[in-house]
Amino acid sequence: MEISSLKALAASVRSLSMDAVQAANSGHPGLPLGCADLGALLYGEVLKHDPSQPQWIDRDRFILSAGHGSMWLYSLLHLTGYGLPLDELKKFRQLGSKTPGHPEYGWTVGVETTTGPLGAGFSNAVGFAIAETKLAAEFNTSEHTVIDHYTYALAGDGCLMEGVSAEAASLAGHLELGKLIVFYDSNGITIEGHTDIAFTEDVAGRFEAYGWQVLKGSAHDIPQMMSLITEAKAEKKRPSLLILTSTIGFGSPHKAGTHDVHGTPLGAEEIKATKKNLGLPEDEQFYIVPEALRYTAQKAVPWKAARETWEKTFANWAKANPELKAKWDNFFTDPTTLVENAEEPSFAVGESIATRVAGGKSLNAFAKVMPGLTGGSADLAPSNNTALPFGEYSAQNRLGRTFHFGVREHGMGGIVNGLNLHGGLRAFGATFLVFADYMRPPLRLSALMSLSSIFVFTHDSIFVGEDGPTHQPIEQAEALRAIPRLLVLRPGDAQETFQAWKLALKQSHRPCSLLLTRQNLKVYEKPANWKEDFEKGGYVVKDTEKPETVILATGSEVNLALEAVKLTNRRVRVVSVSSRELLQDNPNHLAKLVPQGAKVVAAEAGITTGWKGLADNVLGLDRFGESGPGAAVAAHLGLTAENLAKLC
Amino acid sequence: MEISSLKALAASVRSLSMDAVQAANSGHPGLPLGCADLGALLYGEVLKHDPSQPQWIDRDRFILSAGHGSMWLYSLLHLTGYGLPLDELKKFRQLGSKTPGHPEYGWTVGVETTTGPLGAGFSNAVGFAIAETKLAAEFNTSEHTVIDHYTYALAGDGCLMEGVSAEAASLAGHLELGKLIVFYDSNGITIEGHTDIAFTEDVAGRFEAYGWQVLKGSAHDIPQMMSLITEAKAEKKRPSLLILTSTIGFGSPHKAGTHDVHGTPLGAEEIKATKKNLGLPEDEQFYIVPEALRYTAQKAVPWKAARETWEKTFANWAKANPELKAKWDNFFTDPTTLVENAEEPSFAVGESIATRVAGGKSLNAFAKVMPGLTGGSADLAPSNNTALPFGEYSAQNRLGRTFHFGVREHGMGGIVNGLNLHGGLRAFGATFLVFADYMRPPLRLSALMSLSSIFVFTHDSIFVGEDGPTHQPIEQAEALRAIPRLLVLRPGDAQETFQAWKLALKQSHRPCSLLLTRQNLKVYEKPANWKEDFEKGGYVVKDTEKPETVILATGSEVNLALEAVKLTNRRVRVVSVSSRELLQDNPNHLAKLVPQGAKVVAAEAGITTGWKGLADNVLGLDRFGESGPGAAVAAHLGLTAENLAKLC
Repeated sequence: MEISSLKALAASVRSLSMDAVQAANSGHPGLPLGCADLGALLYGEVLKHDPSQPQWIDRDRFILSAGHGSMWLYSLLHLTGYGLPLDELKKFRQLGSKTPGHPEYGWTVGVETTTGPLGAGFSNAVGFAIAETKLAAEFNTSEHTVIDHYTYALAGDGCLMEGVSAEAASLAGHLELGKLIVFYDSNGITIEGHTDIAFTEDVAGRFEAYGWQVLKGSAHDIPQMMSLITEAKAEKKRPSLLILTSTIGFGSPHKAGTHDVHGTPLGAEEIKATKKNLGLPEDEQFYIVPEALRYTAQKAVPWKAARETWEKTFANWAKANPELKAKWDNFFTDPTTLVENAEEPSFAVGESIATRVAGGKSLNAFAKVMPGLTGGSADLAPSNNTALPFGEYSAQNRLGRTFHFGVREHGMGGIVNGLNLHGGLRAFGATFLVFADYMRPPLRLSALMSLSSIFVFTHDSIFVGEDGPTHQPIEQAEALRAIPRLLVLRPGDAQETFQAWKLALKQSHRPCSLLLTRQNLKVYEKPANWKEDFEKGGYVVKDTEKPETVILATGSEVNLALEAVKLTNRRVRVVSVSSRELLQDNPNHLAKLVPQGAKVVAAEAGITTGWKGLADNVLGLDRFGESGPGAAVAAHLGLTAENLAKLC
Repeated sequence: MEISSLKALAASVRSLSMDAVQAANSGHPGLPLGCADLGALLYGEVLKHDPSQPQWIDRDRFILSAGHGSMWLYSLLHLTGYGLPLDELKKFRQLGSKTPGHPEYGWTVGVETTTGPLGAGFSNAVGFAIAETKLAAEFNTSEHTVIDHYTYALAGDGCLMEGVSAEAASLAGHLELGKLIVFYDSNGITIEGHTDIAFTEDVAGRFEAYGWQVLKGSAHDIPQMMSLITEAKAEKKRPSLLILTSTIGFGSPHKAGTHDVHGTPLGAEEIKATKKNLGLPEDEQFYIVPEALRYTAQKAVPWKAARETWEKTFANWAKANPELKAKWDNFFTDPTTLVENAEEPSFAVGESIATRVAGGKSLNAFAKVMPGLTGGSADLAPSNNTALPFGEYSAQNRLGRTFHFGVREHGMGGIVNGLNLHGGLRAFGATFLVFADYMRPPLRLSALMSLSSIFVFTHDSIFVGEDGPTHQPIEQAEALRAIPRLLVLRPGDAQETFQAWKLALKQSHRPCSLLLTRQNLKVYEKPANWKEDFEKGGYVVKDTEKPETVILATGSEVNLALEAVKLTNRRVRVVSVSSRELLQDNPNHLAKLVPQGAKVVAAEAGITTGWKGLADNVLGLDRFGESGPGAAVAAHLGLTAENLAKLC
């Protein structure tokens, strides 16, 4: 380890970061200045990575949970050869640049996940670490190791105050994720002032209670940090939290250690003073210490060599283990073809079955042909019907495919995203629809990142019944549709549920929510070729000549619509809307389903807002539910076939 | 303490609970059977309460955070004289009964808050405990104590796994809420099985790290629990967690200690066996041990006497301290008249000022005339502009009115609700609009409970700019409107902001979200009497003769609309929509604003879904934002006056 080279690298991170924030007149200089030494150490000496091949599956993962410190990451990516040009750093926070305000996955090479909403990266990191243990267990042999890497994350005070990191940390300790190493940038500063105005807990004690190893040091002492990291890596069972005391805005003579430096440019004068203080040329902009580039250029050789050695190992492993290699290919294959191999469970017309039950059967059918499909519930598996028959994932059984996330919906969402970000696995999470509210941030992030995370939300309406309004979703389906790119699927019966799961699994760049019922629903007859239209957003379940009215119904309300048709003299066509978003994105298909001039009536056991733009009348629920047997609640609230018929 | 009487009370709780769950064929017998002894002790001996006056302001508060155990609470309320008839217990979980599936505030007397969504009650309890410290500091004198009560809560494994309780617990420890006492029903069981499948952390160690006193005992040992409670009450500084090991479904010979008993009726046969086991008559339904009623009838005398003594103290205090009594009346007065006393800050037409800044000034103006108005931000006060000049609330200064919630949005929401539930205070919380996602559950609960919580959400659109899509709300305004009863106000300039705050403060039975801008907005001219229409949902900012087009704009888009008018030859009326919900609830007013036949164009920097039912064209954003200066992002995404003009 060449300390002077790392110091040069760190100085360059500081130089680039403060200049970029100043040029943008916007951003966060505090973390980059405070954590530059750690960054130099990580990207220079610690990480197993090859910047020339940033997609290398066995690379160590690094996650900047404190995403506001984005310039720290961009500086390091530039300096270590990830192909992020200096010009892009100069365009920090400008429209279209590769250096947006917070790190964006899929946009800037080397960014493992989108962060900024605090605690999110921490929970993703737990998902990454789980993925590593699973893939290692699946593929490593006594002779060859193809998966063996660490997951590192850098978290700030804010990340550790958020409940989501508490949930994820508790689970990480339980699951004995020994290869997860989190750095806590303990700088004692938050936006409102010193952390001690709101955050005086004993963080070390808390993490020890979670089953973590906790180590302490200084973020400005490179040899000490190196030895702590070595200690962390040596611990095989417990995840490690390295509490690093740092000075926020390190080097700034007047602002270091204050909350002024957290999220505000230093100002031209203070930058000069800081540069002088740090031994950098005062008047040079975006200055890079030559030794930093010499050092990273030199490191590129062993980085590449290590990756090439892995490639050879992988080739040898593949040759020696053709069956494992075939499985590997399955794990890493676009599932579009795989899902066609699944055997559809038999759901007979006339049969009465809850779509959550059909969902469970469908999931299991797909899981058989997709060995990388894995997931679980936030302690509601028996209700969500999401258990898989391939063992339960635990510290003792990394091969298990069913997760017990505990009553931790928010953490589950972040972990599912992490599992999907890692590569190789297709992960889902499940809870009651009403508790989607607990996990809005990871739902949004999955959509923002174009991940293919799947979320199973059962008990999708007031038909939950007796549990009452706290457990009866009203606004949740619409609130999910509000998230751009998130696909919301609400199948109307068991057959449609299988099709919905298939559609969800085929998505490679958009997350899906599957909304399933608690109550039984009758399987209805369908026209030939319904599946094709189902995948476009909806199909005609029951037609009539020259329809005067078209009912657009989702989920359980399709059966309601079929009942309503019998109660009216009007000529009514019933359309099962699998996904309103798909329908609205495809006006031609919508026009095919809804003939010009026909009256349109929408039916969904939830708020009516989103249907008003599409329908003349809406049968829905714009108020909270009530406790009582489902059918009684529905009747009380007017969600009946009679009322639907009247609206036709 | 009469142990045999408490045992009779406990046996009656078990009897009523298992029969009610069985009669409903739905519900959770596990907790009521497991925690019956604790319930008897609490409601019989521990709580300072007078069931004949359940609104007594100085009563101890009890919160059933594990809300699924509702029959436990209903049994106790019935047995101790809260006026909940036995007939209502027999109608457990039936439509319209006073015994819904989960306890509902405002519906069943004696229920302090609506619970069911796990962890929510825990966070409310922290709010209750804070309220007590504040009111005690405000009103007690060296001679008279008018506020002096404890806050108790019962939480299960699920509550403690949720991140929201972690956030609230950390803050409770920091704030030294010594009069907060939480019972942890540690029964080792969750829905998916034993808690050790997902929850093996050292809960005691974690809470000690938060600064709590942790005590341990058995939920089936009444004298031991009594002595632990005494110990908890003696600790003045640290909140206390009493970890009580319990057998879920205690008494059931075949199901006790299993997850089968958590949320499923025992079944007729097992109920018989359980009754036999507990010494209850096997064939009697809803049996109450006579001693239980004798005991509670006898306790009613001292309960009432204690409350009457307090009334006398209060009267003496009021007489001796007329100024304090006037202040008390102010705290406990409907603010509708108070807010009229506030001096409106001067916001001149033409002035350019962000509505978050105007919001801060307005808040301060109202805070001056409403001494009970209190709140804070989740570590964003300098950005949210929500600091008050009346000191910061802390363990050292209970009189302070500005809270530092830390980076804990979800916990903040629950605490704000608890503060408002307690009585005497009017509380608000603040964060960025995009982070409303972190606190959906308490937002929903505030609406479900018809609380008057206020939530300030600044940085309300892509005009946030450089922070990029993780920080730019797109779907949040619409997702808030999706919550029934929650009022969403998005004022268009500084003057409207003052009016919006006033409108929010006048709500006594509905929560409000105030959506405010980061960026400056020009204060525009307004017609006379605009305020009256503003309170109805919207008013005409700029009119024209025989309007061909009406623009419905909110927030920053009102200025955009005023620009657009200049760019079109059409006769355009501009309406500032303060709240779309109010407008939609008032069709007459809407008809006044939008003349028949006029083309309607909506403008809001967010998703268009909710406007489509109201407008012919919508200028909005149905995609995530981008990082860049706000104006550049808006131009890039087409949110311009030119485009709005084209839509007219």
